[in-house]
Parts: sequence; C-alpha cells; structure tokens
Amino acid sequence: MERIKTAIVGASGYTGQELLRLLLRHPEVELVAATSRQEAGRRIAEVFPRLEGLPGAGLKFIAPDAAEIAATGASAAFLALPHGVAAEMATALLDRHLKVIDLSADFRLRDPAVYREFYGQPHPAPALLEEAVYGLPEVRPEEIARAALVASPGCYPTSIILPLLPLLRDRLVDPATIVANSMSGVSGAGRKGDIALLFCECNESLRAYGVPKHRHLSEIEQELALAAGEAVAITFVPHLVPVQSGIITTTTATLAEGVGGDEIRASLEAAYGEAPFVRLRGEGACPDSKHVTRTNFIDIGWALDPRTGRLILMSAEDNLGKGAGSQAIQSFNLIFGLAPTAGLHFA
Amino acid sequence: MERIKTAIVGASGYTGQELLRLLLRHPEVELVAATSRQEAGRRIAEVFPRLEGLPGAGLKFIAPDAAEIAATGASAAFLALPHGVAAEMATALLDRHLKVIDLSADFRLRDPAVYREFYGQPHPAPALLEEAVYGLPEVRPEEIARAALVASPGCYPTSIILPLLPLLRDRLVDPATIVANSMSGVSGAGRKGDIALLFCECNESLRAYGVPKHRHLSEIEQELALAAGEAVAITFVPHLVPVQSGIITTTTATLAEGVGGDEIRASLEAAYGEAPFVRLRGEGACPDSKHVTRTNFIDIGWALDPRTGRLILMSAEDNLGKGAGSQAIQSFNLIFGLAPTAGLHFA
Amino acid sequence: MERIKTAIVGASGYTGQELLRLLLRHPEVELVAATSRQEAGRRIAEVFPRLEGLPGAGLKFIAPDAAEIAATGASAAFLALPHGVAAEMATALLDRHLKVIDLSADFRLRDPAVYREFYGQPHPAPALLEEAVYGLPEVRPEEIARAALVASPGCYPTSIILPLLPLLRDRLVDPATIVANSMSGVSGAGRKGDIALLFCECNESLRAYGVPKHRHLSEIEQELALAAGEAVAITFVPHLVPVQSGIITTTTATLAEGVGGDEIRASLEAAYGEAPFVRLRGEGACPDSKHVTRTNFIDIGWALDPRTGRLILMSAEDNLGKGAGSQAIQSFNLIFGLAPTAGLHFA
Amino acid sequence: MERIKTAIVGASGYTGQELLRLLLRHPEVELVAATSRQEAGRRIAEVFPRLEGLPGAGLKFIAPDAAEIAATGASAAFLALPHGVAAEMATALLDRHLKVIDLSADFRLRDPAVYREFYGQPHPAPALLEEAVYGLPEVRPEEIARAALVASPGCYPTSIILPLLPLLRDRLVDPATIVANSMSGVSGAGRKGDIALLFCECNESLRAYGVPKHRHLSEIEQELALAAGEAVAITFVPHLVPVQSGIITTTTATLAEGVGGDEIRASLEAAYGEAPFVRLRGEGACPDSKHVTRTNFIDIGWALDPRTGRLILMSAEDNLGKGAGSQAIQSFNLIFGLAPTAGLHFA
Repeated sequence: MERIKTAIVGASGYTGQELLRLLLRHPEVELVAATSRQEAGRRIAEVFPRLEGLPGAGLKFIAPDAAEIAATGASAAFLALPHGVAAEMATALLDRHLKVIDLSADFRLRDPAVYREFYGQPHPAPALLEEAVYGLPEVRPEEIARAALVASPGCYPTSIILPLLPLLRDRLVDPATIVANSMSGVSGAGRKGDIALLFCECNESLRAYGVPKHRHLSEIEQELALAAGEAVAITFVPHLVPVQSGIITTTTATLAEGVGGDEIRASLEAAYGEAPFVRLRGEGACPDSKHVTRTNFIDIGWALDPRTGRLILMSAEDNLGKGAGSQAIQSFNLIFGLAPTAGLHFA
Repeated sequence: MERIKTAIVGASGYTGQELLRLLLRHPEVELVAATSRQEAGRRIAEVFPRLEGLPGAGLKFIAPDAAEIAATGASAAFLALPHGVAAEMATALLDRHLKVIDLSADFRLRDPAVYREFYGQPHPAPALLEEAVYGLPEVRPEEIARAALVASPGCYPTSIILPLLPLLRDRLVDPATIVANSMSGVSGAGRKGDIALLFCECNESLRAYGVPKHRHLSEIEQELALAAGEAVAITFVPHLVPVQSGIITTTTATLAEGVGGDEIRASLEAAYGEAPFVRLRGEGACPDSKHVTRTNFIDIGWALDPRTGRLILMSAEDNLGKGAGSQAIQSFNLIFGLAPTAGLHFA
Repeated sequence: MERIKTAIVGASGYTGQELLRLLLRHPEVELVAATSRQEAGRRIAEVFPRLEGLPGAGLKFIAPDAAEIAATGASAAFLALPHGVAAEMATALLDRHLKVIDLSADFRLRDPAVYREFYGQPHPAPALLEEAVYGLPEVRPEEIARAALVASPGCYPTSIILPLLPLLRDRLVDPATIVANSMSGVSGAGRKGDIALLFCECNESLRAYGVPKHRHLSEIEQELALAAGEAVAITFVPHLVPVQSGIITTTTATLAEGVGGDEIRASLEAAYGEAPFVRLRGEGACPDSKHVTRTNFIDIGWALDPRTGRLILMSAEDNLGKGAGSQAIQSFNLIFGLAPTAGLHFA
Repeated sequence: MERIKTAIVGASGYTGQELLRLLLRHPEVELVAATSRQEAGRRIAEVFPRLEGLPGAGLKFIAPDAAEIAATGASAAFLALPHGVAAEMATALLDRHLKVIDLSADFRLRDPAVYREFYGQPHPAPALLEEAVYGLPEVRPEEIARAALVASPGCYPTSIILPLLPLLRDRLVDPATIVANSMSGVSGAGRKGDIALLFCECNESLRAYGVPKHRHLSEIEQELALAAGEAVAITFVPHLVPVQSGIITTTTATLAEGVGGDEIRASLEAAYGEAPFVRLRGEGACPDSKHVTRTNFIDIGWALDPRTGRLILMSAEDNLGKGAGSQAIQSFNLIFGLAPTAGLHFA
C-alpha cells in the first residue's frame, strides 16, 4: 500500500517537533512537507538534531504556502500554527482538497460569538465552523472519520473532558460544582524566546496563571455542556510546573444523590473499556505524568470523598502527546481508515 | 543581653536542617543541643556541609535524651520528630521547664478522638492537648506568647488556613464549597531512603497523593471551623511536584451572596495589613513559589470568577519555611518577647 | 519466524526497566521471564505502570533461579545484576545453554588480577573470562556474533572508548595524556533507597565522585590499551548532575606531531561512517545529551585546540541506552543474526 | 556611621538581581540607584517580587546615566553590564569620582591586544587598563583596597584560578598540562529571551560549549601566568548543566617531580588557611555545588592520582556569588575598609 503523503504546517515548535517525531516513524505516512517560516531551507535534523538518522529527517523546511504544500501531493496536513493564522491556512488547504487536522483553537468552538469572547477577535472563517469536528477520537470517532477538517483539542481540555464526559452524560455528578486544577509542563507554553519561559524562571518555580478565564475554558465548557445536555460553567485553574511535558488534572465535583464508586467505575468502563489509549487506573489510583509522557495515553484514577460528597477525578497525559500531537494522529488514523494505534506505539 | 539557650530535637531531617540554618544565625539564640539518633557524634557541618563556617556549626549531634538536653541549660526546644515520638519528648522537656515548639502533628488537634481517627492510634499525651496552642502567629499571637507548648502547624495547613481564615470569619465564602489543591516540593516528604523519593522517581513526575483524606485535613478543618463558627469539611488534594521546596495552594470556594472583590480585599487587608510575613499580592496576582523559598513569607493572591460565582485564592510559601521551620521560630520569637522578625531576615 | 525466547534477570532496576521497555517491543523477541527478588509475583506493568498496555507487560516477575529460567525455554538471558551475583547466574545459565548478555562488570576484564584490584574481591568465575567477549558492537561484531557470553560495557567506558579507539589505533593522540571528564544522569547510580540519591540531594547539585580510581577505569584502560598496542593509564573523573539519564564525556589528549582536523575526521569516519548508532556530529559540534536519551545513539563531536596542541573529544549517550540496555540488545541482535537495528528504533 | 551610598548599573539581569539581594541587606550600604534601560520606572520589588518587603526594595529603576547616578551622591557603583558598554560607563563614573567595581570583562585583561583577540574589538578604554585591579580578594587585597576601578573576575576564572594559583606559585604542578572542565548552571548565560536558554531546551540536557577558546580563557591564563612566572596556556571546556546556579570545576595537571599530598595541602593551607570565603574540604573531598549556592564561598577538594602522576583539583562556587555578585562586594568591602564578611553572611 502506498503511504499517505502528509504535511506539517508550523513544524518548528514543540508540537511540531512531536508531530515530526511521530510522523517520520508512522508506517503509513510519507512526510512530504514541513513548514517553518523561521527555519525554511534547513534540514529537519539540523533544527532537531535528535531526529538525525530517521528516514525522512533530511527533508528541508519550507515556508508555509498552501499552493506549495498542495504541489507536494499531500493528502493531509497537520496545522500547528497560532490561532488566526491556522484558519487561513486551513481554508486554503481545504480548497485544495487536503484533509486538515488543525491543532490550533480556530475550529474548536461551534459558536463564533464564543470565539470572539475568548480570543478577542472575530472568527476568521466562520463558515467552516459547521464543517469542523472537535477531534476527541474516543468521543466521536465516526464524525472524525468522515471529516475534512478536524479541530484537534487542546491539552487542558483533553485532560478535563475525557474523565468527566461519561459521568456528566450519566448524570453522576452535579455540573454546577466542577472545579478543575491542572498542572502543566513548560513545553505547553511554546518554543519562543520569552523571559518567563527561561530555565532560570521556570526551574524551582510553581505558579498558577490565566485565572479566572483561560481561553481553553470555552472548548471545555462547550463539550461538557454537550454531554450534560445543559449549559456548564466550571472553574479551571492551570498551573505551570517545572517538567518538560506532562499534564495532570485534578477535577472535583459533587456526586449526584446516591452515586457511589460502583456507578463511577461502571460509567468510565462503559465509555473507555475498549479505548486503546485510555488507561483506567481505578479507584484510589493517582496517575503520574511520568507514565504517560511521549505516549498517546491518558491515565485516569479517582477517589470518592464521602466526608464532602465529592468525587476527585485525576488524569495524566502528555500535553504534547494525547494533549496535542499524538491525539491529532489518532484522528488522522480514523480519517484514513488505519489501525487506531498506527504510528502510536510507545514505550 | 544573654542569648537564649536553645535545642533542636530531631535535627537531621530537612526541617531540622532548616532550623539549624536559621537558628545558627539567629541573633538572640545560642544553639546548645542538636539531636539525631543517626548522626550522634558528628559535627553539624559534617552532616550539613553547607553550614560549615557558621559559628556554632562545630557543635556535635547528640542522641535525643530529655535529661541531657535539659542539662545543657536550654530554655527552649524545637521538636522536628515523627508524631508519637514528639509527644513523649515534649512531655519530658516540659517537665524540665523548657518551652517546647513542636513541629510534629502531636499537639495540633484539640480533640484526641480526631487524632485517633486521622493518625490511627490513641493520642500519646492527651492531657497536654488543652495546654498546647496551635501556632499560627498571625492568628493567635497572644496565646502563643504565653504558651509553654506550641503546636506549630503543618505546611499544607498554613498555606490553606491563612488565606481562608479572614474570609470565613467575615462570612464572605460558603464553607461547604471549599476545595483546596496544593502542589508541594519533594522536601516535604522527608529525608529518608525511600525509592519513591529518589531523584529518578520524582524528576519529570507530577502526581496527586493522599486522597481523599490526608492527615493534615484534621487540623485544617479544625482551624477553619473555629473561624467559621461551624463545622467545616473541605476537599483537599495534595500533589507532589519536582521542586526542592515550596508549596502553592489554589483554593476555590463559592462567594457569599453579594460579595465582590472589595470585600475580599478589605477582609484580607484587615487581617494581614500589618503582618510582616504575609504579602498580599492583590487581586489577579498568582504567587510564585520561587519568590518565597527560604523565607518566612506567605504570598497571597486571588481572583474572582463571576461566571461561576467562585473565589480563587492562591498562596505560596516554603514548606520548610513558613510551612515548618521559620514559622516555628516566629512563635519562638513571640514566646521570648523578641522582635517578630528576629532571625527571620531573608533575601 | 519464531521469536527468540528471552529472559531478563534483575529486571526491577533502571537498566532492567530499560531492557523491559525495549524487549517488550522488540519484533523478534518473546519475553518469557523477568526476575526480581523483590518484585516476584507482581506484574511487570504493576511495578512499571508506564508499560501498561504493552503486549507482554502482564508477565509476572519471578525470583531469580537459573533452572526456572531455563524451564521457560529461553534461548538468551540479559543479566542486570550486581557484580559477583552476575557471575554465578551467568555460569548457571551457560551450563543450561543459554546465550548470556551480562551487563555487570563481571566479565569485562581479561585479567582476574585487575578485577581483584578494582572490585576488591577474587574473580568469581575466572574460567569464563577467556570465553567472554567485551561487547562493543562497533569494535568486535564478529566475536560478539559467535559469543555465548557477552560482557556488555559500562556506561562511562562506552562514552570514552568509542571516540578514542580509532584515534589511538591510528596513533593520532598521545595515550599518556588522556583526561576524561564525564557527567552522568542520576539513573546511573541505580534504583535503591539511598539518601544520597534522593531528589532533594541530587536536584540543584553538581559534584564529582569516585576519584581518582573509579572501577570503570579498569575496563576503559584495558580496551584503550588493546587499541594503542601499549599500556594506557588515563585520568577519569565522573560527575553526578541532575538529569534523569544521559552521559556526556569530554576527553582531552595531546595530538600527535603533525596531526590536524583532517586526520581526526578521517579516522573517525573510517571507523564509524557505516555504524548505524554512531552519529559523527563533526568538528566544532558539542553533542547534547537530550538528543540521545532513550536511543542507542552515541553522538560524537570534537574540536582542536591549536593553542595547546590538544584534541577535545566530546560524546553524548544515554547511560541506560547505548551505555547499558540498548547496547546489550545490539549485541543480542548480532548473536542471533538479526538486523543491527532490530528493536532499536527510536524517536 | 553613615552608610555608603551605592549604585548598581545594569541591575535587571541575574547578576544584578544577586547584587540587589545582597546590597539591600548590606549593613553598611545605602542603595541609591539601580539602573535598567528596560525596567526604568518600575520598583525593584515589582521586577523581582522575591525582594518585596526588604527595606529599599521600593526604589525605582532608572535609565543608566552617569550624571544621574552621580547626582544621587553615590560613592560607589557596581557595573553588571555587557562588555564594551561597561567601559564607557566606568569611564564616566570614574570621572565623577565614584569607585567602580566592574563585573564585565572590560578591565580584566592587562594587554589590550589580548582583549582584541578574545573579544573581537579594540579595547574601548585602554588608558584605564593600567589603573584597574583584577579583583580576586584572596590574591591581591591591598591593591583592591587602594583601587578606584576593580575588574571583578568572571565565574569560570574564579573557580579555576583560586585552586591553581598557590600550586603554580609553589611550582607543584606543571603549567603545560592543565586541563579544566567546568559545569555551570544556566543563570550564567544571562537573563535574555534566547530559545537556547528556555526551560525545555536546558532541562534534561547536558552539553559542552564554547570550545576550544572561550573568552574567559584570556583572563584565566593571564592570572595563571602571573603566578607561574611564565606564559601558561590551558585547555578549558565549559559545560551547561540544568541547575539554577552553581559551578563546579575539575582541573587536572601533572604533579611536579616528587610532589605529594602533603605539599599540595600545605600550599593551599598557606594560601587560604585564613581566607574567610575559601573552604578547603581536603584531600579526597568532592565539593558539591549545593553547599555553596547563594554564598560567597568557594569550596576546594583534591585527589592525587598516583597511576598517572596527576593532581585532580575540584572546586565549587556559585556563579552568581563568588563567581560574580558577592565577590564584587568582597572587593567593595576592601575598598571601603569594612569587615571582609560585611553583608556576606550566609546560610
């Protein structure tokens, strides 16, 4: 079988690097283009010396240009671009009949007004919002499989939505009581020369940020509301902690009347018992980010707090993996009818 | 003026090391004894080479023995011992008329039944519970000043109680809705040869632990209840993150009807405007642990989340400092009528 | 083709974990036994939760017993055991006709007197020394391919020997002037409950250790002498630095009369131009450990210092990879006639 | 006694921050000016929130201007500026009769030709070179005491020169055989928005850099030559390792004929037995950077390697402390006739 010609647009950031790492080894993929305004003309392995020796790592970065990307014969493109910029590129590539898996926030929201509220600008391509599918492969695999445009979720949303979704759908927790605290590795903040991201600023440092209204809240609440069948507003506090990658999220919510550990377990198992990338660690388990880094896994544990009537939901994922690059590949696999785990082996 | 002869009992752990660091430089203190079963006979500076060159660092560790400690002429003793063991030593030293500042959990709870519930054993010296004062210097300075036995609070409790206390007292938040998420540096887990605390296990690792009923919950809820004037049960989730020391805590609670940013600020300023070790960073500020490590400060910031009606309270302290050693010295200063900041200078 | 039944003896340390990680995914291997005195009876994935989901991770650790290992039908065994213990197990497994790849120091030295000098005890199985092959696959692939017992090199030796070997063989540097400084990640010190290896002792800490006569000197000098055709004594200073894994080594030596950059490059390229796991980064390049972690690569760069007439050789490898586990698998591939890179893909 | 009015020029980098930390607490200093082009108009504690609460931390940064600095009545100025810029400011401040302690490289070299060779530009103020004193307080205290312009040494030079100097002076090692390998924390690279200094680039990374001719070589060799009484050329390899601050240096050199441990110890003790900031840890000791961070100490250990006839010299210091800020204050104390340890207490 011929391999699927694929492009990565915006490949010189940390998410781009993760996509390169995975797609250069994906057995069904032929990487035909990697773009970077900054690195155009340099070999992939020159920019990311770790990748030296991988077949395909000699490919040279090109400047981002839809026509040039299409000219490579690419059937699909991953976009790891800033929001706003992504929409424009997506439009141009869809016009050229590529499947687009967009890792930016541009197509995650169904309502352009919410986009405007959270991103402070009018939506750059509102017509595409209806077409785009929010790309949680565990949640809507069929829609993703049929999509031309997948809006691959953010790292925080994935870590919050996946554990909560079945419980809201099954009405096991009170949606008005949800509080999510996430701790993220520094790679989530991007690869840019910002003083606040220097080693000496992040090392031996712990801090919350982005309160009370982080942009990702918009997509989190949209997806939770769909599951709950009602509007949901949650409190979400992200924290920056000194690890390379990895996110853990601790979410608390009041249990619905009469709900105990059996119902929680049953709901999660019904949702994810067969999901190859969700590891239910069980009641009492506290997932550790070090067990999921560089994988597409999300690990989920939970505890019931009978003293307060609350559920404590804990998840761990790699912000660059299940929270970005590898999850996007999971959608890609669905679109092209590949095995769900193709190119996502780990260890 | 003669300096106060002082002993540290259990001085070879991380809290002991912090007490040594501070007391060897405290202008009103003469360290006359430092005990360690393990290190008895070795010089302080041999065990902690960093301290070499400090006057007094040539003192040799002795085995823990109340009579021998009293024989040094010590007027005061800091206990950095495991719970259970601390009570026994405290009793023996109080009998010998030393002032005791106990950093263990043994005298923090007023009710021996709660001790039994959370620590899994009968209280070893229930008669002393009435006498002991829970040592939050910002909360009950006069009682501490008169106390013979101070139960110096744990690191998590300090970070949770101080920001919440005035707000509960002033009825600005609903006590039934409190959720506290803490992230702690690894030194909080102690200096012991435990695989789980190895560099290679903690580095690049994020995880919750101790859910749903960490032992410190007992003292947290006791103090919050005193402030609220009613029983309080909260959800508390501690997390282990790869920094040396430092704790940040993010606490959420539903605002009482009609309460806004002005009331929150006013309440915190009334409580801590004059407190030398509480830095109110203001609304919108997210305290960073790197600004408080090796100090006795607790930094407090907050944000209001009008979408959910919740308050987000954020604090940062050093788990070995304001969360242990330096806070104990703050109580010591009160007991001996010293300047509040004596020996607690920083930078 | 049937997969090769393979055992790991001593699989619960960091090297064991790396072997598990790689062998569970090796396409030609069926892991039939993993031993650990401590973890016997527990599933691999229970001890190493990261591996959960890998086929074979449900296998249970057994106690180390040669007969029991042989009874699994294993054709080969990797030994990740302390020296002394390894020799005994190797003897028993060789008797049972398994191929043995020993990652301990027991069979690395040709001369039992040197073993005694550096390891402080008589060699436990001197008869096997002649049979054992020092397992640097780039250096003696044919001997390894024919060996029943491979003594897989230590992490420091690999990082020092590989860059130096061709230069000594080609008489480009003066063997009497070699000084090697290595910096190693903490995993090299093993997975044991030792205070000195705690996060809080290693984090924010840099220190030399093991001077002037680290045990690995013995094998380093043995191999260098073989290349130089004369006895070689070098100065070697290892340092412990706070990374998980990875070693960089900077070796200096005086250039032989008239030798310049061209000769150095030619010598290294002749030796390693075709070697799949040696990446010659070139003159002026300073290899970074982050580009080799979790791979079997050794990256090599160099610089000439005309002011002093010295060569500066720099190498980077993963102490658990090319310095231990994956290098052992490289030998295994040779023994069983597999592709050199089988099971050693990376990214 | 009136306190000495003092300015810090270039106070918003990591060295500036360390100077602020120390000078704001120095009992004989009144900080009257802190400059930063970037931060002009902001309070010190706003830029460095850690310092909030220190008397004087409310001072506002001003733009660097010699006239304005002089107008504050300052008697002394510390310059933490890039080379080139520093010379210009030094000239202007000396003209205005301030004592200048320059932490840049501008006045460290006696020979402007060497400056040109290593810094790639003509010396900006060659007339001042004769006047400037290379500020190693342990080496030339009287000259520093009389100086108007002190060229405070770099971090690498301090760590290399101090241990070697007495040995060269006493002819105990062969100057032609010196090889120095240093490992430095990331703060040494400065506080600037450079991708290579991001947390995600430095964390879990080890690498050499600046080979074979780091700029600091020039001052190192100048000072070693003065001690040896002959020209000295050494090999120096700096490495970047993931700690906040701290440098360790391992220097090897061939022992002179007949020299043993006694001579080495005697030489070091004669040189530093009374030096308050040099801690001779003794033969066999491997200094650990974590014991010197945030202090003005340099710790020195050594080992003899009889197999090769080499000495292994090991030192540890804080690159921002003894390697920059606190060492500059040590010179300041000499200039103003203060106690050597004034403002340099530690713990």
